[in-house]
Amino acid sequence: MKSRNPIDLFRIIPLDIIRRPRVSKEKSNLRPGSLLYTGKKKDEKIHLQTMVFNGDSCEEQEVESIDALKKLDLNGKTLWLNVTGLHNVALIEEIGRHFDILNIVLEDVLNLGQRPKWEEYDDYFFQVCKMVMTHSEKIKHEQFAMVVGKDFIVTFQEDKQDIFDGVRNRLRNPKGKIRSRKPDYLAFALMDVIVDHYIIIIEMYGDRIDELENELLDNLGSNFIHRLSTLKKEVNWLRRTVRPIKESVINFNKSPSSLIDKKTSPFLKDLLDHATHLTENVEVYMVELKDLLDHYNNQMNNRLNDILKVLTIFSVIFIPLTFMAGIYGMNFEYFPELSYKYAYPIFWGAMLTVAAGMIYYFKRKGWL
Amino acid sequence: MKSRNPIDLFRIIPLDIIRRPRVSKEKSNLRPGSLLYTGKKKDEKIHLQTMVFNGDSCEEQEVESIDALKKLDLNGKTLWLNVTGLHNVALIEEIGRHFDILNIVLEDVLNLGQRPKWEEYDDYFFQVCKMVMTHSEKIKHEQFAMVVGKDFIVTFQEDKQDIFDGVRNRLRNPKGKIRSRKPDYLAFALMDVIVDHYIIIIEMYGDRIDELENELLDNLGSNFIHRLSTLKKEVNWLRRTVRPIKESVINFNKSPSSLIDKKTSPFLKDLLDHATHLTENVEVYMVELKDLLDHYNNQMNNRLNDILKVLTIFSVIFIPLTFMAGIYGMNFEYFPELSYKYAYPIFWGAMLTVAAGMIYYFKRKGWL
Amino acid sequence: MKSRNPIDLFRIIPLDIIRRPRVSKEKSNLRPGSLLYTGKKKDEKIHLQTMVFNGDSCEEQEVESIDALKKLDLNGKTLWLNVTGLHNVALIEEIGRHFDILNIVLEDVLNLGQRPKWEEYDDYFFQVCKMVMTHSEKIKHEQFAMVVGKDFIVTFQEDKQDIFDGVRNRLRNPKGKIRSRKPDYLAFALMDVIVDHYIIIIEMYGDRIDELENELLDNLGSNFIHRLSTLKKEVNWLRRTVRPIKESVINFNKSPSSLIDKKTSPFLKDLLDHATHLTENVEVYMVELKDLLDHYNNQMNNRLNDILKVLTIFSVIFIPLTFMAGIYGMNFEYFPELSYKYAYPIFWGAMLTVAAGMIYYFKRKGWL
Amino acid sequence: MKSRNPIDLFRIIPLDIIRRPRVSKEKSNLRPGSLLYTGKKKDEKIHLQTMVFNGDSCEEQEVESIDALKKLDLNGKTLWLNVTGLHNVALIEEIGRHFDILNIVLEDVLNLGQRPKWEEYDDYFFQVCKMVMTHSEKIKHEQFAMVVGKDFIVTFQEDKQDIFDGVRNRLRNPKGKIRSRKPDYLAFALMDVIVDHYIIIIEMYGDRIDELENELLDNLGSNFIHRLSTLKKEVNWLRRTVRPIKESVINFNKSPSSLIDKKTSPFLKDLLDHATHLTENVEVYMVELKDLLDHYNNQMNNRLNDILKVLTIFSVIFIPLTFMAGIYGMNFEYFPELSYKYAYPIFWGAMLTVAAGMIYYFKRKGWL
Amino acid sequence: MKSRNPIDLFRIIPLDIIRRPRVSKEKSNLRPGSLLYTGKKKDEKIHLQTMVFNGDSCEEQEVESIDALKKLDLNGKTLWLNVTGLHNVALIEEIGRHFDILNIVLEDVLNLGQRPKWEEYDDYFFQVCKMVMTHSEKIKHEQFAMVVGKDFIVTFQEDKQDIFDGVRNRLRNPKGKIRSRKPDYLAFALMDVIVDHYIIIIEMYGDRIDELENELLDNLGSNFIHRLSTLKKEVNWLRRTVRPIKESVINFNKSPSSLIDKKTSPFLKDLLDHATHLTENVEVYMVELKDLLDHYNNQMNNRLNDILKVLTIFSVIFIPLTFMAGIYGMNFEYFPELSYKYAYPIFWGAMLTVAAGMIYYFKRKGWL
Repeated sequence: MKSRNPIDLFRIIPLDIIRRPRVSKEKSNLRPGSLLYTGKKKDEKIHLQTMVFNGDSCEEQEVESIDALKKLDLNGKTLWLNVTGLHNVALIEEIGRHFDILNIVLEDVLNLGQRPKWEEYDDYFFQVCKMVMTHSEKIKHEQFAMVVGKDFIVTFQEDKQDIFDGVRNRLRNPKGKIRSRKPDYLAFALMDVIVDHYIIIIEMYGDRIDELENELLDNLGSNFIHRLSTLKKEVNWLRRTVRPIKESVINFNKSPSSLIDKKTSPFLKDLLDHATHLTENVEVYMVELKDLLDHYNNQMNNRLNDILKVLTIFSVIFIPLTFMAGIYGMNFEYFPELSYKYAYPIFWGAMLTVAAGMIYYFKRKGWL
Repeated sequence: MKSRNPIDLFRIIPLDIIRRPRVSKEKSNLRPGSLLYTGKKKDEKIHLQTMVFNGDSCEEQEVESIDALKKLDLNGKTLWLNVTGLHNVALIEEIGRHFDILNIVLEDVLNLGQRPKWEEYDDYFFQVCKMVMTHSEKIKHEQFAMVVGKDFIVTFQEDKQDIFDGVRNRLRNPKGKIRSRKPDYLAFALMDVIVDHYIIIIEMYGDRIDELENELLDNLGSNFIHRLSTLKKEVNWLRRTVRPIKESVINFNKSPSSLIDKKTSPFLKDLLDHATHLTENVEVYMVELKDLLDHYNNQMNNRLNDILKVLTIFSVIFIPLTFMAGIYGMNFEYFPELSYKYAYPIFWGAMLTVAAGMIYYFKRKGWL
Repeated sequence: MKSRNPIDLFRIIPLDIIRRPRVSKEKSNLRPGSLLYTGKKKDEKIHLQTMVFNGDSCEEQEVESIDALKKLDLNGKTLWLNVTGLHNVALIEEIGRHFDILNIVLEDVLNLGQRPKWEEYDDYFFQVCKMVMTHSEKIKHEQFAMVVGKDFIVTFQEDKQDIFDGVRNRLRNPKGKIRSRKPDYLAFALMDVIVDHYIIIIEMYGDRIDELENELLDNLGSNFIHRLSTLKKEVNWLRRTVRPIKESVINFNKSPSSLIDKKTSPFLKDLLDHATHLTENVEVYMVELKDLLDHYNNQMNNRLNDILKVLTIFSVIFIPLTFMAGIYGMNFEYFPELSYKYAYPIFWGAMLTVAAGMIYYFKRKGWL
Repeated sequence: MKSRNPIDLFRIIPLDIIRRPRVSKEKSNLRPGSLLYTGKKKDEKIHLQTMVFNGDSCEEQEVESIDALKKLDLNGKTLWLNVTGLHNVALIEEIGRHFDILNIVLEDVLNLGQRPKWEEYDDYFFQVCKMVMTHSEKIKHEQFAMVVGKDFIVTFQEDKQDIFDGVRNRLRNPKGKIRSRKPDYLAFALMDVIVDHYIIIIEMYGDRIDELENELLDNLGSNFIHRLSTLKKEVNWLRRTVRPIKESVINFNKSPSSLIDKKTSPFLKDLLDHATHLTENVEVYMVELKDLLDHYNNQMNNRLNDILKVLTIFSVIFIPLTFMAGIYGMNFEYFPELSYKYAYPIFWGAMLTVAAGMIYYFKRKGWL
Repeated sequence: MKSRNPIDLFRIIPLDIIRRPRVSKEKSNLRPGSLLYTGKKKDEKIHLQTMVFNGDSCEEQEVESIDALKKLDLNGKTLWLNVTGLHNVALIEEIGRHFDILNIVLEDVLNLGQRPKWEEYDDYFFQVCKMVMTHSEKIKHEQFAMVVGKDFIVTFQEDKQDIFDGVRNRLRNPKGKIRSRKPDYLAFALMDVIVDHYIIIIEMYGDRIDELENELLDNLGSNFIHRLSTLKKEVNWLRRTVRPIKESVINFNKSPSSLIDKKTSPFLKDLLDHATHLTENVEVYMVELKDLLDHYNNQMNNRLNDILKVLTIFSVIFIPLTFMAGIYGMNFEYFPELSYKYAYPIFWGAMLTVAAGMIYYFKRKGWL
């Protein structure tokens, strides 16, 4: 179905993202907390990338195994472990055991159809959501999860390509404030990047809506209505995606957890501000698309009206004239008018009178 | 009415499920708490299936009577009594007396039109809802109720066929975690299965909606609008059914009852997550169906517009031409043009000019 | 206006029930708490029917006057006084004085336009609402009010005919649980009957909606749209009536009054369940009627589309043909084709070609 | 614009009441609390009418100046000062000073565009709203404000004509309960009258809606749609006006102020009941008007359908017939049928066959 | 796009205000709290205007640098520093440092796409919103922010032109109450002016809506539907802008901050009243515009109905007449009627009978 339709070129979000995620039937027979990766199986190796930092230093290392991870000397520093790839369930489970993460949490990490959420446990808090990135006018959409403890933060992502290079550079920068903070601040910084990328997409939709609006004022391209309805569907999807992210941020803000430093809280308020901006804009777009559709329908209706007016007036003027011509085309033998000398000019006069009278009538009625 | 309509093939939920359940008039004269089975009377025997388990063992037995039930030696183990069939009111009443269940609770067990609910009493809590299962692209829909006490859980179902075999197998499995837990965990596991089955249905609706949507983009099959409206009605029914189930799960989560172990609570949160996913999807489908309907109406409207445009232009071009032909078909005796030698070619010239002028006009107006 | 319209046969609720109750202008000049009966004045005597009961006995008596009432020996028993007829304001006032009921309460008893409500005073609680009963496919609608004290319950109704015979029989039955309970349980039983009767009406609407729906799928009867709109109006009225009844039941449930025994509370929860069922169904019916209306409009629209398509294709095919025939009906003297020998067969050939071409075009466009 | 339209005769609320009140631009440069009368300047004298009453006596007096007011001997009695006319700002200010009323309160008294509100200060509470009265099928609409203290109540109104004569008579009546109560009860009585007058208007709208509804079932008068839309606009205005009045009454009810006697509270509950009745009815009317409009549109649509059906069938039947007649009006020289003897009767036979076939087809399609 | 459309003349709010503010992509890579001015870069100098006042005196001075600012001798007086121009980020940062303002606050000052908000910090509170001013029937729209501390208030605005001259004059006036109050009162006064200016705009929309409404009753101008939809879009924008301002005012009211004097609180209540008035009116306008649109569509529909009726009746009357004329224009050789002497008058009689019959039929159907 994908390439069948020129509307696919118009889509911002590929269809398979919008299509509802499946809870496989097999899964519904498993006990809760069983780990199952619901994405595509891949052969690639899972990458474990570590950054160990404090105010003074920041060391990056790609570890090969859990054992190498265990040998890392933290010594009061903070560890950021970034796990790329989710298809090796056994490895994920081992990581979970190392950091004392509940299975029920790991299950959510692996479940690609998971609704974004923020949860708090005794020793860590947990966030799962989708991160989006633009890729030549299309959106890529990846699972993102993080578990944030007292001195570590573990992040999970499906694919090597990500949006956190800015954060990594700020960590590498010796003067970066982020380095001297606790993992909660790093968690905030990652969420901030994710929310900002959603805002970028939102703006792409703003542009598309503006395009459609200009088209409506100027000249309709083909498939207008299909494109409008595609956009509506996508924005609707965005709304569903963005709302639980805002809920997550609210929970992050309100969390009484001792893991979250008081100094981080103004930044969290700011993050909430952005998330609010995001959800409000999505709502606005929904309304604008609805208005566009109404506007379009009105315009179509008016055009139909115009056409019908022309048809009416034309028909209504010619109908009696044609009838009159028909009369004098009859072949009755006793037909006095036919032989009258001035019949033809008089006929034309009558015709013009009738036509003029009707035009006058329509003008007065305001139909012309 | 059932086989009259090809739409019945399209239905997922049989019509008699959607039809409103009846509160029989006789019932409204009974005192509250009187037991009355509101389903079809059957002759089959009621089955009493017991599972007695703890961390170490799990014994299954089909008992014949209440007396056999009383003789069961629990000895600190947990009893799951599954009652299949609800038509023997006297037996149900006896079971209730054995477990000290209030009549007003049993009344709800037997009332097939009962709204799903979760209620808490001093010594047990009570859940009633519908369980659904798929059966060759159709849904079967059965009453399910459970009473969960300190060391027992009694479940009631209408029909032998059920969806709990997965749970039973996990109980039979010596390493299953479910065995070493209290009845509250088993209650959770059963609800989890029920909610998961609702999710499977929801996905069937997702497929139907996708089908209709593709039809809309490609080529409309017959009865499109009736099928759409059938789907809408069914999803609407689902919404009404699913919402109180979510309420039940919320109550289960918030319950202060000492019957619910603290260790069960992360699983309950997870269950609530699924129920939320369920209700959100149903809402989404309602919106999508509404959008589909709007889209369909727009498309119909546009098609009508196209047709009317063709009619207009055709008529409007031919109307004056036909009139002109009519003029020269008149039989006036004194009709100078008729005898003019080049009249006929000139006539054709005039005709083409008029037609071309009109086509030009419509092009400029953007109607062509 | 009543018999003018065949729709009146379709009505379930007579028009004068739906018409807004009047607050007479005179009333707005009275001081608050002045008693005024707002219904029709009648000459009939007011009936005072008493039942005095406890666990052991139940005596029924029809008293003639307040004095007879005062002579009744209660002796720890509970008194149910049922007042039939509200037009004798003086008598009502005397009754009020006997039971120490505030004038402002009696005012609500007498005001037929009173919104259903539940109110709690120091020594009694007070409920006023409408009771409905079916009467040959139509609804009768009567004022009902009750004042429930420590050892008495006074009920007021407009008309002799009522729906409480079931309750009376349960009181007469020596084994009836209702006898050994306090007036709060009797109050619950009365409310239960009232709510159950609303549910019966609701089901009548369910049937009507099903009828309309079947009509829509099969063949529209006359006045479909008027009947639909009548039904909508009535269900809308029902919604307004039923919602405050549910509020009353909620208040009854939440009441901290010492008049309400703790043992009654599971029954009140059950009553609330029924009231919830009632209001939810009314909401569902509103939605279904709206959907029916939309469905109807869609169907009308499609039918119009079909008709217009036929018109279009017919006209559009014949328009050029008629024109061509007109051409060769002209009387030009120099008209070469006319005298050509095979002109007539060629003409037919041209005609068929044009017609076939157009049909092909419409087929390709999907209009046929 | 006022007399231009016959719809003005239909209006209940004069247009200038509905038009939004202006906050004059000059005002936006004043400091808050500056007194400015926003109504029309008038030359009339302001009337100060006093009633001094307690359980034993009630003295009425029209005072000329503040000084006369100061000389009044209250002596434990309650003073009701009614100020008629608001254009003398200096006098109002003096009155304010006499009773220790804040300027910010007086500002609200004078601002005719003020949203109804109830406010509580340390020594008095304050209510401002509009009072309405009917005047030959039209509504008059006047500012009303009152300041209620421990032993006084000051009311402000724009115009001499008011709706409080009933209250005054109850004060003059030696047995009136109102006399022996505190100012809070008088305040309640005034609000009660105001709310009752809103209910009278509401009933006028009920009548108008019934009229329109009957028109719809019978025969549409002219301007139906304009009148409907006028009514909708007015009811919408009423909704906006009535909602804050209900808020006021709720605040009055919930007020913890010591100025409000406990004995007044059942009356306040009753007042709230009326206000609720008022707002609910307005909501109901909004819905009914919407339904009327939908019903009207449906009816118009159906009528259009009927017309189009007739057009279609007529045209479609005559189109081929006219075409056939055109054929045999052609002047080809070699035209075999023309000279065939039974051509004419056969022609008629063919015609009738075609027409009958088409009618049969339409009947089968259900278009006739 | 700007000058292309005559609708631009109709706009009240220039298009670039309504267009969504951009969060530049570069920004999303900065760490939170980095200052970045998101408006147009300008070369103009930033103006620092100070007013130092207490009850006794008020000194105005334009300072050139931060150093001059530091030298100001406050001595218990209150300082109002008004910063005009936001493009010199370094200077803004220095000011922030001088008054101990967090960077995260300054970031919001500079971000022109900032949602209006009110925030409270330990030593100051902070408000950012847009101020609007009218400029020859168009709206200008400027960033406004203020930081209010114990003895200072710093305001930031983009442009020299502002709306606070009234406030400045009240400060200069030796008797102005504003002088003897704390900065919280000045903050209130500024917000009051901003809200009042929004009210002025709201009234401009009221006028536009009235214009459109009159047009609808009288005679539609061109582009009616486009203008209506422009207005709707602008009012929608206004709604989004005004709602967070009201939230700000609510926060200002509820603030427990010791910076807000108790005496200011009645003024804040008044400000909230205005903001409520504002938001309510915007909601009302949304509804009115929706109603206007519906009304317009209804009117268009009715007009179309009228036109179609005329077409129908005309066509339907002439169709059989034209057919009859066609019949007698046929050239059959054996055509008895043609040679009948009174054929022609009889023909006319038949015609008139048919026409009259049809007119009668339509009259009876109510189509004429």
